[in-house]
Amino acid sequence: MSLAEIQLDAQAALPLYRQLYRQIRERILRGGLSAGDRLPATRDLAQQLELNRATVSSAYALLEEEGLIRGHVGRGSFVADPIDRHSANPPGTSAVSGGFVPQTGFVSQNAGSPGSAEISFATSRPRSGLFPLDQFRLSCEEVLATEIAHTVLQLGSPLGYAPLRQYLLEDAEEHQIGRANDDILITNGCQQAMDLLARAVLAPEDTVLVEEPIYPGLKSALAQAQVRLVSVPVGEQGVTAEDFSRLMESERPRMAVLTPSFQNPTGATIPLDARRAMLEAAARAGVLLVENDLYSALRYRGDAVPAFKSLRGADDVVLLGSFSKVAFPGLRVGWVIAPRPLIRRLAEIKQATDLHTDQLSQAVLLRFAESGRLAAHLRSVRKAGLAQLEAAIDGCSRFLPAGSRFTKPDGGLNLWVRLPAPLDAGALLAAAQSRGVNYLPARYFAVNRLDESAFRLSFGGLTPLEIERGLQLLGEVFEEELARGARPGAAEMETAMV
Amino acid sequence: MSLAEIQLDAQAALPLYRQLYRQIRERILRGGLSAGDRLPATRDLAQQLELNRATVSSAYALLEEEGLIRGHVGRGSFVADPIDRHSANPPGTSAVSGGFVPQTGFVSQNAGSPGSAEISFATSRPRSGLFPLDQFRLSCEEVLATEIAHTVLQLGSPLGYAPLRQYLLEDAEEHQIGRANDDILITNGCQQAMDLLARAVLAPEDTVLVEEPIYPGLKSALAQAQVRLVSVPVGEQGVTAEDFSRLMESERPRMAVLTPSFQNPTGATIPLDARRAMLEAAARAGVLLVENDLYSALRYRGDAVPAFKSLRGADDVVLLGSFSKVAFPGLRVGWVIAPRPLIRRLAEIKQATDLHTDQLSQAVLLRFAESGRLAAHLRSVRKAGLAQLEAAIDGCSRFLPAGSRFTKPDGGLNLWVRLPAPLDAGALLAAAQSRGVNYLPARYFAVNRLDESAFRLSFGGLTPLEIERGLQLLGEVFEEELARGARPGAAEMETAMV
Repeated sequence: MSLAEIQLDAQAALPLYRQLYRQIRERILRGGLSAGDRLPATRDLAQQLELNRATVSSAYALLEEEGLIRGHVGRGSFVADPIDRHSANPPGTSAVSGGFVPQTGFVSQNAGSPGSAEISFATSRPRSGLFPLDQFRLSCEEVLATEIAHTVLQLGSPLGYAPLRQYLLEDAEEHQIGRANDDILITNGCQQAMDLLARAVLAPEDTVLVEEPIYPGLKSALAQAQVRLVSVPVGEQGVTAEDFSRLMESERPRMAVLTPSFQNPTGATIPLDARRAMLEAAARAGVLLVENDLYSALRYRGDAVPAFKSLRGADDVVLLGSFSKVAFPGLRVGWVIAPRPLIRRLAEIKQATDLHTDQLSQAVLLRFAESGRLAAHLRSVRKAGLAQLEAAIDGCSRFLPAGSRFTKPDGGLNLWVRLPAPLDAGALLAAAQSRGVNYLPARYFAVNRLDESAFRLSFGGLTPLEIERGLQLLGEVFEEELARGARPGAAEMETAMV
Repeated sequence: MSLAEIQLDAQAALPLYRQLYRQIRERILRGGLSAGDRLPATRDLAQQLELNRATVSSAYALLEEEGLIRGHVGRGSFVADPIDRHSANPPGTSAVSGGFVPQTGFVSQNAGSPGSAEISFATSRPRSGLFPLDQFRLSCEEVLATEIAHTVLQLGSPLGYAPLRQYLLEDAEEHQIGRANDDILITNGCQQAMDLLARAVLAPEDTVLVEEPIYPGLKSALAQAQVRLVSVPVGEQGVTAEDFSRLMESERPRMAVLTPSFQNPTGATIPLDARRAMLEAAARAGVLLVENDLYSALRYRGDAVPAFKSLRGADDVVLLGSFSKVAFPGLRVGWVIAPRPLIRRLAEIKQATDLHTDQLSQAVLLRFAESGRLAAHLRSVRKAGLAQLEAAIDGCSRFLPAGSRFTKPDGGLNLWVRLPAPLDAGALLAAAQSRGVNYLPARYFAVNRLDESAFRLSFGGLTPLEIERGLQLLGEVFEEELARGARPGAAEMETAMV
């Protein structure tokens, strides 16, 4: 146990607890302490180092907040084990201070705070346990082992890292997505792509057609552009061609943004025929169609539906893609494929915004993709995803109250659940959290219409067992509420049972 | 020579030259081909693979554009050697398609295109040859070897990677920069910090005080906010307190943005007394002061001048910092230190803009810094920087025409040069480029006032020998122009000789 060598300086500007935190952290990172190693009890270490016990506790608290150690009541603190940690304490919330819920596009003080939820259906993200760390390390090493490292670490282009752009353009051509007149811009994920598009194309008071319910990040990107949002409802089959065409004619929006495959939050996918009809309607009305193609690679069953951008007449469609949902969300690398003049305009704004996207991640993800490792990873993600999806659908059927309705997608990371009247998913969140289960109620996804009975069930970050257990707990919370309150009347029951 | 195993498929969707490019590239990256290895002549490889010779040439052209191979007339093509490549063909321009000049905040079709300039004074960037690649690799490995990798690769916080924020806050405290009420936000470099600030604080038609000449990236960030720019001249001692205070009173701008140490493009530094007076003037006028502290760590001689943010009465000052100038510009990691409420607001906008900054680079840079490698790197950069700076000042004295004036900073990456009348630095750029030397003339840095005689001399990316040679060539170009044109009159000569 290497804590014997710790040297603290009471005269230093840095408080003692931070000095201690830093030195223990250093030992864990350098490998002097390994997963499972037990740390001394705070009392013992305090005595040994002649410190106040609170100083040691504070240092341990910082280490635990960072996920480097875990405390077990009565047993002491241990250097954390990755597996342990990442099933119980969802990353992406653990390192977050101030209660941010990264993937949801808003600041929340109660959702997703560490410790409050053991099983979190709140974040649309892949499962950390599936990250192929060895393959990722290898990709890093290969990038940094060659002279390419010099280029990667030096200033780059606003358009993106040239070899990655080329790879993605070729991939788009192979999938009949890229056109001769198209170009590509690398962005910090899809979120930045939407922000840049809003800045390039939209003026205040413009009308933009979006889906209802909507991904909150999209809503916040558009909110900054001060546009008017008109929403089109998303059903089991996504947005219908009828609704969409009607709004194209009546509203003549400047832009329409659709997530045709496994939409977030509903999971719904628009069928091919409807896509064709919608493309025509957008073209007739002269509306710029933006296709958010974030989830289509996460199909676990059934046949692929071609992207809008791959259809005849889709020359002007803007396609947004990203590595974040299929690989590593912490690496912010996405892209826009669109006609060249728009890409040039977006690149100018991108340059004024942040010069260019981080090149280390661009180069490593390129290596990960072109080496075939991404394809292998996708196969394993799809296999695991099918089990997760089935656990989610099965769990909803088994545990949610009679009359609950939910989408049954063939892929993606989310289901959309509507509870029977009079249940209010928002009002019930606190009760669910007190049982250790978290989700995001419909209010985070509403544009113009709020269905209080609904919530998003993000199953992507959880194991099938966690999904099952989480839904069982949710079912108990909802059933108890039904038992407590007045049962809905017969008429309502009838509707709800459909 | 492993090119024997190349397998191409004439029926594939991917053109043959791209298949060939990919396969050779793969061999270079995997180490099957090493630096210095000679590629077969295009004619021979075409014959061997039964290809059109143009197909092979196209594949080689792609590899050369990417910097993986180098062609030597009459000798054939060779797998590139890092040293070779990065002294002759400045990175940051080499990987750029479409003639982007990354660091200058605009799209240029003639400046900095690869091949047109052997010695480029056009980009304010550090020298790739100084990058401590081994130390960087080690930092990557250490991050990815621990369970921290799971957290790094998963979704993060809009505020930034918590351990990096903590490290930077402690560092700021140690330098008396952070206040009890301050917080920190990690951004994609300083460029994004300015963009977020503009979006958080400024409304169209607001007045913003900036330096003249200005860093173009700052101008483009503010241009997007549609504000009115009022400029204050930068002399040898930076902005003077008199000019600044007068404009604070007369213009009452919403915000003032200063780069007090080694300003880009001039290299000028504001003395301590002037900083104190300016801070008071800003406070009196109720103006938000933004301190762009990008270059202060690059001091090669003389005594440090305390940051505005470290002075008494600077509680509300917003400080922008970054790793990009002192370490690896291709990694986009910067930060804002400011009072907590402003940081919260910036984080909300950041989240709507791109969720969060790339976590791989944040974690690796943290590791690089906390392991002491950054400090060691800074020592070597400062030592090399002094030699570069002296070569630049010495070269200007020796080679530029009599009457030329230039700043003589103690650090940073740039000098500002004014040529004697009637020389026009913009008009002479083409002649300089035809000699293989590149720079950016004053028009790129002008706000309200253009001095046609001036240009920025960015010496940071070059060796002392390259700096000397480049200035010698520039001197010849300028002297020839003076010899060709009418000599300035006696009165002008007198002024110019001062």
